[in-house]
Amino acid sequence: MGRVTEATRIRTVRVREGRLYAGRKGDRVAVEEPLDIRLNGQQLSLTMRTPGHDVELIHGFLHGEGLISHREDIREARYCDGAVIDDGTGFAQNTFNVMDFTTSRPQLLPLVSRNFSAGSACGVCGAESIDAVRRKSRHVLESDWQIDPRLILAAARGLGGKQAVFARTGGVHAAALVDLSGNLLVVREDVGRHNAVDKVIGWALLEERLPLRDCFLLVSSRASFEIAQKACMAGIPLLACVSAASSLAIETAEEFGQTLLGFTRAAEDGDGRMNVYTHPERLDLAAAEG
Amino acid sequence: MGRVTEATRIRTVRVREGRLYAGRKGDRVAVEEPLDIRLNGQQLSLTMRTPGHDVELIHGFLHGEGLISHREDIREARYCDGAVIDDGTGFAQNTFNVMDFTTSRPQLLPLVSRNFSAGSACGVCGAESIDAVRRKSRHVLESDWQIDPRLILAAARGLGGKQAVFARTGGVHAAALVDLSGNLLVVREDVGRHNAVDKVIGWALLEERLPLRDCFLLVSSRASFEIAQKACMAGIPLLACVSAASSLAIETAEEFGQTLLGFTRAAEDGDGRMNVYTHPERLDLAAAEG
Repeated sequence: MGRVTEATRIRTVRVREGRLYAGRKGDRVAVEEPLDIRLNGQQLSLTMRTPGHDVELIHGFLHGEGLISHREDIREARYCDGAVIDDGTGFAQNTFNVMDFTTSRPQLLPLVSRNFSAGSACGVCGAESIDAVRRKSRHVLESDWQIDPRLILAAARGLGGKQAVFARTGGVHAAALVDLSGNLLVVREDVGRHNAVDKVIGWALLEERLPLRDCFLLVSSRASFEIAQKACMAGIPLLACVSAASSLAIETAEEFGQTLLGFTRAAEDGDGRMNVYTHPERLDLAAAEG
Repeated sequence: MGRVTEATRIRTVRVREGRLYAGRKGDRVAVEEPLDIRLNGQQLSLTMRTPGHDVELIHGFLHGEGLISHREDIREARYCDGAVIDDGTGFAQNTFNVMDFTTSRPQLLPLVSRNFSAGSACGVCGAESIDAVRRKSRHVLESDWQIDPRLILAAARGLGGKQAVFARTGGVHAAALVDLSGNLLVVREDVGRHNAVDKVIGWALLEERLPLRDCFLLVSSRASFEIAQKACMAGIPLLACVSAASSLAIETAEEFGQTLLGFTRAAEDGDGRMNVYTHPERLDLAAAEG
């Protein structure tokens, strides 16, 4: 596919001072399509995603589930030829929506069944959900660095300018990995915020940059348990979200030693703000006034 | 549980004219906890949700999956006693995060296995995803009504005032069913937008109001395939979203005859706007100027 946005015709309706105005115009919307993720020929998961960077997405997803830890764990990644649609011309077309990953170690499969029999990374209470992450996680979120909050706000400002799909559609979330000088290393967008995170972590895995000790993860969305969990699995010491954090994201971050920031809002003029939910010790506040 | 928001202590960081300011304050965050949904004792799904209205949520979820159609289809709904945590006092506490629904017709179970073996409502391309909804759907989205867009904007304005959890946390989505006079029949909030929709549709099912022919669904979030699908299953002829619509939500709405509105934005002064992606015939635009 590779299509990330799609053209459409819409009607527009406006109300001004009680009067109705109607119009028509061309518009662009974010593409959402299913991705059928298979491991060694066996169906593992179906996710609705924006096409593009599927190989990164699946690497990131498998890493978040604790199934792989290095790029060498995957021997082959390919779109299944079998998944075809007839477009009416008589020619069958690959949908590029079914992808099979073959692992180097076939013994991964029993692990998969065990993982997915109880659903994906969930328990019956918050504590058990966090336990499940602990069982799968390989990285201790240790780091001795501190960062000036102004660099985080500058990165958030920079992310705004890199959200190309959002600029055209208003309909996708973004995730970015940022180094400690505030440089955006990679930016990915997707209709699903968890997919955007999987894509950047999959990118880092393929670049052999895991664990991401000297980076932070910036997301345009809220922080749910799932986002905090994926960041913990990748060894990311700081997670900055543009919107709110949930109770279970905060508990997870607290437990794993992750700094969690919410409402990370940067104005164009350089001003900004953030809420610090956990582990403020990574923020350099020495120059801060009370 | 029943806890919907949770108190926490946070640090605040602000930047003004290049200078850092740090503070501390109390804050409230939206609660996120896992809900383990069981049908006839067998695990069906795990969803991260905001506790409260779990019975509605599960009814709505089962309806969206095409597993039940009437309240009589469920004989019993109960929290499992087995799911307990020891809170350190020596007394075990029910987590209220595991719920078992017993169906009136035990033959539902093979249907469940069939449904979930291929994941939830997804195919390998957009067309197959829509086919899956068609196979499960019972309702044709027929309606002969028209609504003045100003009533939809008034409802969106009204929803803002009813989002109690959002007002306290900024961290949840809302869904509402609205009648054709613009009255909000029910409003539910949740960290997951699909859960908020399940809760209002579950409410309608328990109130024996399905199919919802003379209603519209208003959601504070974007419209993905999943939201459009759930609305189609409930027979809702019009779906109004505050944010963007995805390509597959638009294709689904087009196919089922559903009017899909995005960027439904209502200002306090009465002005407002919306994008009409599909089936504009349900909007009364007779008085509209060009």
